[in-house]
Amino acid sequence: MLKQAIYHRPKQNWAYAYDRATLHLRIRTGRGDVSAVNANWGDKYAWKETSKIEPMKLFASDDLFDYWEIAVVPPYRRMRYAFEFISGKETLYLTEKEFTEQLPDEPWTFFDFPYINPVDVFQPPAWVKDAVFYQIFPERFANGDPSNDPENVEPWGGTPTPKNFFGGDLQGVIDHLDHLEELGVNAIYFNPIFEATTNHKYDTRDYLKVDPQFGTNELLKELVDKCHARGIRVLLDAVFNHSGKTFPPFVDVLEKGAESKYAGWFHVREFPLRFEDGVQTYDTFAFEPIMPKLNTENQEVREYLFEVARYWIEEIGIDGWRLDVANEVDHRFWRDFRDVVKKVNPDAYILGEIFHDSIPWLNGDQFDAVMNYPFTEAVLDFAARGTRDSKQFADLIGSLLASYPQQVNEVAYNLLGSHDTPRLLTLCEEDKRRMKLASVIQFTFAGTPSIYYGDEVGLTGINDPGCRKCMEWDEEKQDRDLFGFFSELVRIRRNNRALRDGSYELLSAESGKLTLAYAREADGERFVIAVNAGKRKASLKAPLSGELIGNASIVFGEAEVSINGNKLNVALPPFGYAIIRLNK
Amino acid sequence: MLKQAIYHRPKQNWAYAYDRATLHLRIRTGRGDVSAVNANWGDKYAWKETSKIEPMKLFASDDLFDYWEIAVVPPYRRMRYAFEFISGKETLYLTEKEFTEQLPDEPWTFFDFPYINPVDVFQPPAWVKDAVFYQIFPERFANGDPSNDPENVEPWGGTPTPKNFFGGDLQGVIDHLDHLEELGVNAIYFNPIFEATTNHKYDTRDYLKVDPQFGTNELLKELVDKCHARGIRVLLDAVFNHSGKTFPPFVDVLEKGAESKYAGWFHVREFPLRFEDGVQTYDTFAFEPIMPKLNTENQEVREYLFEVARYWIEEIGIDGWRLDVANEVDHRFWRDFRDVVKKVNPDAYILGEIFHDSIPWLNGDQFDAVMNYPFTEAVLDFAARGTRDSKQFADLIGSLLASYPQQVNEVAYNLLGSHDTPRLLTLCEEDKRRMKLASVIQFTFAGTPSIYYGDEVGLTGINDPGCRKCMEWDEEKQDRDLFGFFSELVRIRRNNRALRDGSYELLSAESGKLTLAYAREADGERFVIAVNAGKRKASLKAPLSGELIGNASIVFGEAEVSINGNKLNVALPPFGYAIIRLNK
Repeated sequence: MLKQAIYHRPKQNWAYAYDRATLHLRIRTGRGDVSAVNANWGDKYAWKETSKIEPMKLFASDDLFDYWEIAVVPPYRRMRYAFEFISGKETLYLTEKEFTEQLPDEPWTFFDFPYINPVDVFQPPAWVKDAVFYQIFPERFANGDPSNDPENVEPWGGTPTPKNFFGGDLQGVIDHLDHLEELGVNAIYFNPIFEATTNHKYDTRDYLKVDPQFGTNELLKELVDKCHARGIRVLLDAVFNHSGKTFPPFVDVLEKGAESKYAGWFHVREFPLRFEDGVQTYDTFAFEPIMPKLNTENQEVREYLFEVARYWIEEIGIDGWRLDVANEVDHRFWRDFRDVVKKVNPDAYILGEIFHDSIPWLNGDQFDAVMNYPFTEAVLDFAARGTRDSKQFADLIGSLLASYPQQVNEVAYNLLGSHDTPRLLTLCEEDKRRMKLASVIQFTFAGTPSIYYGDEVGLTGINDPGCRKCMEWDEEKQDRDLFGFFSELVRIRRNNRALRDGSYELLSAESGKLTLAYAREADGERFVIAVNAGKRKASLKAPLSGELIGNASIVFGEAEVSINGNKLNVALPPFGYAIIRLNK
Repeated sequence: MLKQAIYHRPKQNWAYAYDRATLHLRIRTGRGDVSAVNANWGDKYAWKETSKIEPMKLFASDDLFDYWEIAVVPPYRRMRYAFEFISGKETLYLTEKEFTEQLPDEPWTFFDFPYINPVDVFQPPAWVKDAVFYQIFPERFANGDPSNDPENVEPWGGTPTPKNFFGGDLQGVIDHLDHLEELGVNAIYFNPIFEATTNHKYDTRDYLKVDPQFGTNELLKELVDKCHARGIRVLLDAVFNHSGKTFPPFVDVLEKGAESKYAGWFHVREFPLRFEDGVQTYDTFAFEPIMPKLNTENQEVREYLFEVARYWIEEIGIDGWRLDVANEVDHRFWRDFRDVVKKVNPDAYILGEIFHDSIPWLNGDQFDAVMNYPFTEAVLDFAARGTRDSKQFADLIGSLLASYPQQVNEVAYNLLGSHDTPRLLTLCEEDKRRMKLASVIQFTFAGTPSIYYGDEVGLTGINDPGCRKCMEWDEEKQDRDLFGFFSELVRIRRNNRALRDGSYELLSAESGKLTLAYAREADGERFVIAVNAGKRKASLKAPLSGELIGNASIVFGEAEVSINGNKLNVALPPFGYAIIRLNK
C-alpha cells in the first residue's frame, strides 16, 4: 500500500463533531490503492466494553486520492480510534504513532477525540441550507427615487465605468421585490450600502448610515421588513478590513498624524501619512490609497465595528453579514465578532469572502461559510470555459468535498459570478446552453446557490466595470426564456430537499469525456443529474441502486432516458442537461 | 516524483508567522524523492516587483517523508506562494489548485498567506526557553510542618499506596529550596495543592484555598516569593476539567438534583445523580465518580474558574498554570482563559496536559506548550527501553519537529517521567547509564526539560502509586553521583544557549545501529551530542561543516574524539554519551 498517500490528522475536516452526538472520521488513501478501510473505535476509558471495527465509506475521490468516511456516535462523547486498510491480501493499521502490521490490543497509541464539547461544534444557521441568494449591486439594480441621485448621474442603461453613477437605490429594490419573488429567491446579498464616495461603496465613510444616494436607515428597515414579509432574508456587506479615505478617524490621522487620537486605528508604518517610494506609509487594501487598512486589534476599533455589527442586526433587522476581504483581518477579531452577532441573533449568517482554502476560518468559531470560489472555478472550467473534462471536474469537486466538514459543505455559498468577475453569460461566450448547464450543476449541488442580479434576464459584461451594468427592466429587452429557466430551477431546488441537502454520489465521469452524472438523495427520494458539456450529442450510463429501479422521469431539462438492467442510460443533446427523478 | 507524498496546507505547522515580520513555509515530500525544493513567493498585489524563487532547506525527515522549510520576510506582511520540486531532470510545481509542469506567470492560483496580524502570532513567554523545570508531588516531597499532617499519616519513606499519606507540605518545599538551587533548576511545577480529599489532590474541594495538609495561601505566597528571590518560577496545576465530589456546588447537585442552583455546572445526563447500568448518570473524568466533569460552557462556571486563574497569579504571584486533562475541556474556555491569564501577567506560562498530537491547541490562541509525551516515548524507546534504533528515534524526532511551528518546539515541555508514569530509573531497569543517556538527550534538545522530584537522587518506582514515593533526604541514601550528574547537566544547558535554543541538525542515525549524533548551534557556537544506546562500545562519524573544523573538546561525558578531514570520529563506551564543543 502507498503509505505516503495516507493522511489523517484529528480535527478540521478529518475528525470533527457533526452535531452534539455524532463524530465524523475521515481518512485519505492513494486513489484505487486500497479496497477497504475500517475504523476501530471505542471509548478510551472503556475500550474492551465499547470498541468496534466498522467499515468506512468511500465518499469522494480526486486525481490522486480516495477519501473514506464514517459517522459514529460515541457513547460517552469521547473516543480513541485507529484505521485498518485492506488491499488484496495485505492488511495495514494506522495509529496516531505509526503504521503497524498488527492492531495493538490497547488503544493508548491510537488517535484521540477527547470530548465533544457542544460549544465547539460547528452549527451554521439551519435556514442557510434552504436559501437561494440573489446578489444586488445597489447602484445598478433600480433607480426608485430620482431625488437622491448623485449630481453627475448618467441615464439608466449607459456604459459602466469605474467611476460613473446611474442612480440605483433602495427604493428601486423595494419597487422590484415582485421580480425577486417571481424568480423564487429567498435571500438577498447586498454589496455595500453605507455612505462612501465611490459607486461600489467599498470605501466606507460612515458605517452607521445608509448612503444618501441609496436612501436612509429607515428606508432600509422598510426594505428589510418588506423582504421578511415575503420570506426573503437580507445580508449586508461588512467592509471591516479597511475604511474609506473619508472615514472621519482616517481624516483626523491624515491631518494630525501621530497626534491624532485615532492614530492607533490604522496600520501606520511612518507618520505623517504620505506616498513614498511608490507606496503609502500606511497599510491599505492592496495598494489602494483610498482604502486604509483598519487596525482591528485596537480596542476602540473593535468596539466601534462590533457596535456596527450589532446595530444593523438588532435595530434594522438584517439577517447576517458578508465579510469583505475576510482573510486579511485577524482571527481574534472574527471570533469576537461572531459572539457579538450570534448574541443578537443566533440565526444570523456570517459569510466570509475568501478565495482560497478556508479551513482556518471554518472550525465553528469564526464564519458559517465562505464564498465558494473553488466550486465556481470548477464549474466554469467544465461547463462554461470547456477547459476541463468530466473526470477533472469530478476530481476537483471530490477534493473540495473532502477538504471541509460536511456541515461546511452544506452551507457553502456557491456563486458562478459576482461584481468581481465576468458575467456568467459572457464567460459562456453568450451561449445560453452553457450558462444553463453551469446553473443546473450549481442548483443541484450541496451549498447555497447565488444568482448575480441580471444574470436571470441575460445581462452580459466582462470584468469590473463591465459586469456592473444597469439591470434591464424592459421586459422586451429581458431574456424571458432565461428568466423562466431560472425561476423553474429555483422552484425545483426549493421543492426537493434531496437537491439541497441530500447525499452526493458521483455516477459517471471519465477522462476525455464531457458527460457527467451524479445522484442526490434524501428522505428516500433520489435524483440523477446528467449533463453534457460537449457540443455534440452524447450519452452516458449511470449505475442504479437496486431498490430504486422502477422508472425514471425527467423533472427538468431534455434527454432520452431508459433503464437497462441496473443501468440508467441518458442521451443528451449538445450542452444538454437533465434532472431525473428515480421512482420506485 | 511521488505526488501523493507532497503535502502542504496553509497555517498550523505549514505556513505560520514565526514573529511579527517573519513567515515560515514548510512542505513535505517523499523521503529521498526530491533533490531540491524552492519557494516562489511575493506580495500578492505587487507580484512582478516582489516575487522571488528561493531554496528551501531540508530541516527534518522521518521514515516516509522529508520536510523542507524557508523563513521569509514579506515586505507588506502578506504573500502568495507556490513550490518548485526538482528531482533529476524532472521539475514539478504545486500551487494551491494543483500540480503543474509550468509555473503560472500570475499568482492567482497560488497559496495565500493573507496578512500577518500581530495578535494572531504565537508568542510564548521568552523565559520558558531557558527554564529547567522540577516537578513536585507535594504530599511526597518533604514534611516541613508535622502540625498539619493528616490524622492517618504514615512514617516518611513508607510504601506508597493509592490512598495513604506521608505528610509532605509546602513548608517542606521552602525548607529544601537550597536543594533545588544546588540542582540548578529555575522553575517548579507543582501537582495540585488546592484543598481536596485524596493524596494527589486531583479531586478539588476548594479552588481558592491551599489544602490545610499542605499549608495556607499565605504560606504559598511566602514560598513563591522565596522562589522568585532565587530566580525560580512556580507553576500550579489547574484541574478545571473536573472538580472533586466534595466541591460544594457538586454536593448541592447531589442533594438537590435538578433543583440545585448548580445543576448547570456539570454534565448531567439524568437526575438524580446516581450509578446505573454500570456508569454514573453524569459525565466524569474517565469513569471516576469522585471527579465529576465541570460544564465549562456554563457562564457561572467560567467566571468562577477564571477568577481562580486570576487569583493565584495576581494575589499569590504564581508564574503560570499546567492544565490537567486539557484536551477534554472546550476550546472556547481555553481561549478566554488565556485572555484572563495574559491580562494579569503577559509572561505567565500556560502548559496543557495532552498526550496526543496537540496542534489544535497550539496556534497561539490557547496554550503556550504541551507536555511533550511523543518526545518522552521516543527517548524512552531509544535510550531506556532499547526498543528502537537510532534511525527510528531520529525519524520520530523528525516527525515531531515537523508537526509543530518552530516556536512551539522551542518551549515544548520535555519530560521523561512524572507522577503518571514509571520512574525513569525503573524504566531503565536501574541501569544508571541508560538513565544518564536519556537525560543527556533531554537536556540537549529544544524545549524545556523537566526533572521529576527524586530522579536526581536515584528514586525508583513503577507506575502510580510506585512512582510517588517519599523524597529521600538522607544524603547517605541519596545517589550523590546522580545528583552530581544532573546538577552538572543543568548547568551546562543553562550556560550554553546553543543547547537550549540553537538549531538542530541530525548528523548520524542508522537503521540497526544504536549510535546517534546531532548538532545544536547558536551564536557561532556548535555542539555535537553523540550517544551510544548499545551495551557494547561503538563509534560513529559525524560530518563537520567547514568553518568549524578546528578542534573538538568534550564538555560532558566520556568518549574518544578525533577529527579526520571533515569528519568527527567519536568512540563511545557502552551506554556512553558526550557533549562535544567544536572550536574554530
